[in-house]
Amino acid sequence: MAQVGEFAVIEQVVARRRQPTTTLVGPGDDAALVQATDGRVAVSADMLIEGRHFRLDWSTPEQVGRKAVAQNGADIAAMGARPTAFLVSLGCPPETPVSVAAGISEGIGLAAEALGAGVVGGDLVQSDHIVVSVTVLGDLEGRAPVLRSGARAGDVVAVAGRLGRSAAGLALLSAGIGVEGPPDTSTTATSLTALIDSHRVPAPPYAAGLDAARSGVRAMTDISDGLVADLSHVADASGVQIRIDRDSVGLDPALAAAAERLERDPWAWILTGGEDHALAATFASVADLPAGWTAIGEVAPGNGGAAVLVDGRPWTASGGWQSFDAG
Amino acid sequence: MAQVGEFAVIEQVVARRRQPTTTLVGPGDDAALVQATDGRVAVSADMLIEGRHFRLDWSTPEQVGRKAVAQNGADIAAMGARPTAFLVSLGCPPETPVSVAAGISEGIGLAAEALGAGVVGGDLVQSDHIVVSVTVLGDLEGRAPVLRSGARAGDVVAVAGRLGRSAAGLALLSAGIGVEGPPDTSTTATSLTALIDSHRVPAPPYAAGLDAARSGVRAMTDISDGLVADLSHVADASGVQIRIDRDSVGLDPALAAAAERLERDPWAWILTGGEDHALAATFASVADLPAGWTAIGEVAPGNGGAAVLVDGRPWTASGGWQSFDAG
Repeated sequence: MAQVGEFAVIEQVVARRRQPTTTLVGPGDDAALVQATDGRVAVSADMLIEGRHFRLDWSTPEQVGRKAVAQNGADIAAMGARPTAFLVSLGCPPETPVSVAAGISEGIGLAAEALGAGVVGGDLVQSDHIVVSVTVLGDLEGRAPVLRSGARAGDVVAVAGRLGRSAAGLALLSAGIGVEGPPDTSTTATSLTALIDSHRVPAPPYAAGLDAARSGVRAMTDISDGLVADLSHVADASGVQIRIDRDSVGLDPALAAAAERLERDPWAWILTGGEDHALAATFASVADLPAGWTAIGEVAPGNGGAAVLVDGRPWTASGGWQSFDAG
Repeated sequence: MAQVGEFAVIEQVVARRRQPTTTLVGPGDDAALVQATDGRVAVSADMLIEGRHFRLDWSTPEQVGRKAVAQNGADIAAMGARPTAFLVSLGCPPETPVSVAAGISEGIGLAAEALGAGVVGGDLVQSDHIVVSVTVLGDLEGRAPVLRSGARAGDVVAVAGRLGRSAAGLALLSAGIGVEGPPDTSTTATSLTALIDSHRVPAPPYAAGLDAARSGVRAMTDISDGLVADLSHVADASGVQIRIDRDSVGLDPALAAAAERLERDPWAWILTGGEDHALAATFASVADLPAGWTAIGEVAPGNGGAAVLVDGRPWTASGGWQSFDAG
């Protein structure tokens, strides 16, 4: 890494990538220039730290890059916007193989390209551990932003995307499952592998987010801290109480299989597991739900009690993953 | 830090800050929304690592924050744009005093506010060393972006802002000068202190960048790697040779004093010192130079030789600071 130098790596990975037409000035100058046709730009940023948000013995560098894009892209989708451009600042120790920095950048580039977005800039610096800092820009295409504060009593609560899979995949990896050994093609092993893949590269329901924004969604958020925690952000911002029931959420058979294998409660993954980057939203009526959305509860007036009730009771387990609580 | 939690710190520092009218949706939702009235947004990102880009025994947390804003804001200024919004992702070890994270955020907030820009989002995560990752958005206000590739043979080369001061300040700090002891109010000590302050908080010539953009500047860049290195980027992008002369650049008396004190060559600081975030540009004629710009040379046709000549010769010292070469 030290020999090759930052410019070579950046240029190698970024410059050869095709830019969408929304990239007016791409990487290589002091700044990039991105189209924001409707006169506004949605923007969000997240930082991933090696050993905390990813492990290179559990994920390939490309998977780390793809995960960084998913995490950031979901924030834009949760506003009802479409990602247009990513910026990536990468900190690497000098002994980092070039293939790792290039692989992370490649994963970011491929995932951005799949979204029709460009990778328009960033930075590469020397650090003690690998740090991936991503910023995403998005285009509302003339629509109003979908905020957390729009939920109203009487709304239907719905989710798009999968829940608990990333947490289950992490639990499997932490138990040493799926890390090594020959591939096991049994049905159970295949579904456990799928959970691990969900942890490595979450798949936010981007299209469902755009469909919701076009269908009069009232409030929306991405599920990064856990369903209960993120719904409580919506409830607090909207001054309402959100009531969900587990029967409507349903139990993913793969989660049931993983829970049995690890002797764990799958509902802890579903209700408090973060990083799936599913979307949760409220709609005025169940008739408004676009394809890909599942009703899981309802919005009640705020009553000074718990922000979120699960099957009529406050969920007493941890409220989801937060950086400084995760140890 | 671990006790207070990320949300408390972020909310404490970010939420109470006044947002400019260009911040349509501020921090606290999945993403922010920033005005981009002319239908385009300029964007750039930089990462600062503790021990490499700043030291907390040499700078206060607030100075680190201000420096991060200057470094990013200068990239936007170099495109001829005005900074509108900053996003800050901060990585901190758990033992970091809250005052450090809050101080960095405060410095970023105050410096952004002075530019009329908002701090609209970011992230706070646990890391092994302090990492400050900043993204800046900017508004071209309908003007064409000013690129590095616009220089033409016959142009005048000019600079705005100061050169070599940050490098001299760093050299002084590295020699133990200005780190401790009672204040020395002699004239020399005052000018050395000013150099150290320039290292701690560079002052990019934002207004001169906007004036240049309005005055038909042809090419512009910020000086972050050193005058010769950054001019060589302009020369390479434009296919020209840039010729500067030291008499036109002039020798800042404070640099002369520091050079005498440290027995160093002040021209190494001026020609290859980075991090001042001055601006370098080319104009069609000297009559086009706005206030605050000083002509230092001329643009010649590209001839396959050195990208930059200083007093007619290639500058043979290191081509300026690069992250992975700085050791």
